Amino acid sequence: MSDLKNDRFLRALARQPVDRTPVWMMRQAGRYLPEYRASRAKAGDFMGLCGNPEMACEVTLQPLDRYSQIDAAILFSDILTIPDAMGLGLYFETGEGPKFKKTVHTAADIEALPVVDTRSDLSYVTDAVSLIRKELNGRVPLIGFSGSPWTLATYMVEGGSSKDYARTKELMYQHPEVFQLLIDKLVASITDYLNAQILAGAQAVQIFDSWGGALSHHAYHQYSLAPMQRIVDGLIKENEGRRVPVILFTKGGGQWLPSLANTGADALGLDWTTDISYARQQVGDQVALQGNMDPAILYTNPARIREEVATILAAYGKGNGHVFNLGHGVTPQAKPENVGAFFEAVHELSESYH
Amino acid sequence: MSDLKNDRFLRALARQPVDRTPVWMMRQAGRYLPEYRASRAKAGDFMGLCGNPEMACEVTLQPLDRYSQIDAAILFSDILTIPDAMGLGLYFETGEGPKFKKTVHTAADIEALPVVDTRSDLSYVTDAVSLIRKELNGRVPLIGFSGSPWTLATYMVEGGSSKDYARTKELMYQHPEVFQLLIDKLVASITDYLNAQILAGAQAVQIFDSWGGALSHHAYHQYSLAPMQRIVDGLIKENEGRRVPVILFTKGGGQWLPSLANTGADALGLDWTTDISYARQQVGDQVALQGNMDPAILYTNPARIREEVATILAAYGKGNGHVFNLGHGVTPQAKPENVGAFFEAVHELSESYH
Repeated sequence: MSDLKNDRFLRALARQPVDRTPVWMMRQAGRYLPEYRASRAKAGDFMGLCGNPEMACEVTLQPLDRYSQIDAAILFSDILTIPDAMGLGLYFETGEGPKFKKTVHTAADIEALPVVDTRSDLSYVTDAVSLIRKELNGRVPLIGFSGSPWTLATYMVEGGSSKDYARTKELMYQHPEVFQLLIDKLVASITDYLNAQILAGAQAVQIFDSWGGALSHHAYHQYSLAPMQRIVDGLIKENEGRRVPVILFTKGGGQWLPSLANTGADALGLDWTTDISYARQQVGDQVALQGNMDPAILYTNPARIREEVATILAAYGKGNGHVFNLGHGVTPQAKPENVGAFFEAVHELSESYH
Repeated sequence: MSDLKNDRFLRALARQPVDRTPVWMMRQAGRYLPEYRASRAKAGDFMGLCGNPEMACEVTLQPLDRYSQIDAAILFSDILTIPDAMGLGLYFETGEGPKFKKTVHTAADIEALPVVDTRSDLSYVTDAVSLIRKELNGRVPLIGFSGSPWTLATYMVEGGSSKDYARTKELMYQHPEVFQLLIDKLVASITDYLNAQILAGAQAVQIFDSWGGALSHHAYHQYSLAPMQRIVDGLIKENEGRRVPVILFTKGGGQWLPSLANTGADALGLDWTTDISYARQQVGDQVALQGNMDPAILYTNPARIREEVATILAAYGKGNGHVFNLGHGVTPQAKPENVGAFFEAVHELSESYH
């Protein structure tokens, strides 16, 4: 493996000094880019991209080729590859979110689910990781990722996106031991999945807990945070002579930062609802923080975007441990030139904070 | 007006001693009740209920007749009556959320909007309030309500419900002065609307900030909290020789409780994501707290519901200032017998905390 030419992202996650605040963007390889839309058309559909290591590599690199300021690549994939590998049949309908052909509701459904073995069931993902690392050739580090157990469970029970997770919560509240078995199988599968990504070359991993914010305080700790903690405990800590940092991102999790910081994660992702200066106060030197511009700012103009970047940099303040990002994925409606203005603003304005 | 026979709710909002924790439920007059569905069928549609004071009175009283433990009635109406009265044309399609025939996007659209005069434009609402007060005959207090300026603005710009409020945020971030004019017209209209409800007999009022939780920390303070503060400042403080308390409820607002407590509101509504013991620590004796059971608990069974009620009562702890409620509206799928178990549990288990 070639040496890393830009380690700003990994240094910031380790709360070490950097020359500028590193920046990347959730869903940076995505529909807002014309070159991505062209690749997707070529691949046929979204799973045609995810399932093909060459295509996944191609779209992973697109934002890096367009925007020179990006400090990390993230594997192009979907959070639902694990339930798909468990046999639920992931598919996408135009204009709608992801769906599953099969869902799980009963103890029998859940007992029948296999724990996923990444090497045999999801080799297209580890192959993509290896290929991307090779093609990156040390330009920036590569982030691997997975959905959180709670988040994956909601899709597996509801069969797709949901407004209020009614069926999942009914199962969780009414049959906690059955729901716990589902969570346990997901913890084992995700731990294996992330470790396989690390061994294939992922230099950091992020767990996307997209729907943790829908839980009550107690249910969050029991069914989302504790399982993520078990995954963190089970991950490979060092590879290629470097620490492999873990980022936990619970969307809507701003009230639970102290608990999240106690999991042993290296960094926490913040959505845009959280005041990053208050978050920093709360977590102190325990973890790095990643975030947190409202993606909707990208609908405006370069001057307004620059102003917002400046506000967030000032709120975090001087010192180590900040990775700049959006508070959630960039949307298809964002203009590529505005995204460029975002990356430029972070790159230019952050220098004076280090 | 007859004397109030049960003032537990108003006493708790004033943080005065009570014999039991008062309880009511957001959307307690709603689709989970067969008698409500019958009334709605008779009225033709949802607006046929809201727009007809006799029908609105009938459904407002239904949960009180079924569940003897309820300590407050809430006016049956919709949060979107104000934009409808502004001329946007509210309508409902089966199985979908509320929609508007007209939307607002430009400075011209917003300049053309009238400030609503409740007495002439929304007399069906104040007529309903007067009638309900008469029919309640002092049984329990009556709550009036409105949507918050930010929440109403999202519907007016998007034309209905929204996943990410893209158009509203674009307007807000890109043309803040135009958006502020919309907010200002809503502040004036809502203040008039709530004061008219108070003069017609509402003994407390609640502002539903359903979508405040979608805003960034700064945007929330500027476009949701500050406008609500202006409404609180403009409300009639006392009527019929009693204080008229104001409850602010920002769904997803758990990170902003100290700011909310500083608005001068009497109480804050909490959704289920917030730990009510931590909330109490944060706000001290500044305000009462209302909430906050996850409505999904109502999908389970009486024993599980009782357990959850006990947990929340214990988390709030002994002392004054708690109004029990759900963390959001009851859903149509809740079983009426489970709702009964909820009210009974609060009634029975709360006695030992006072």
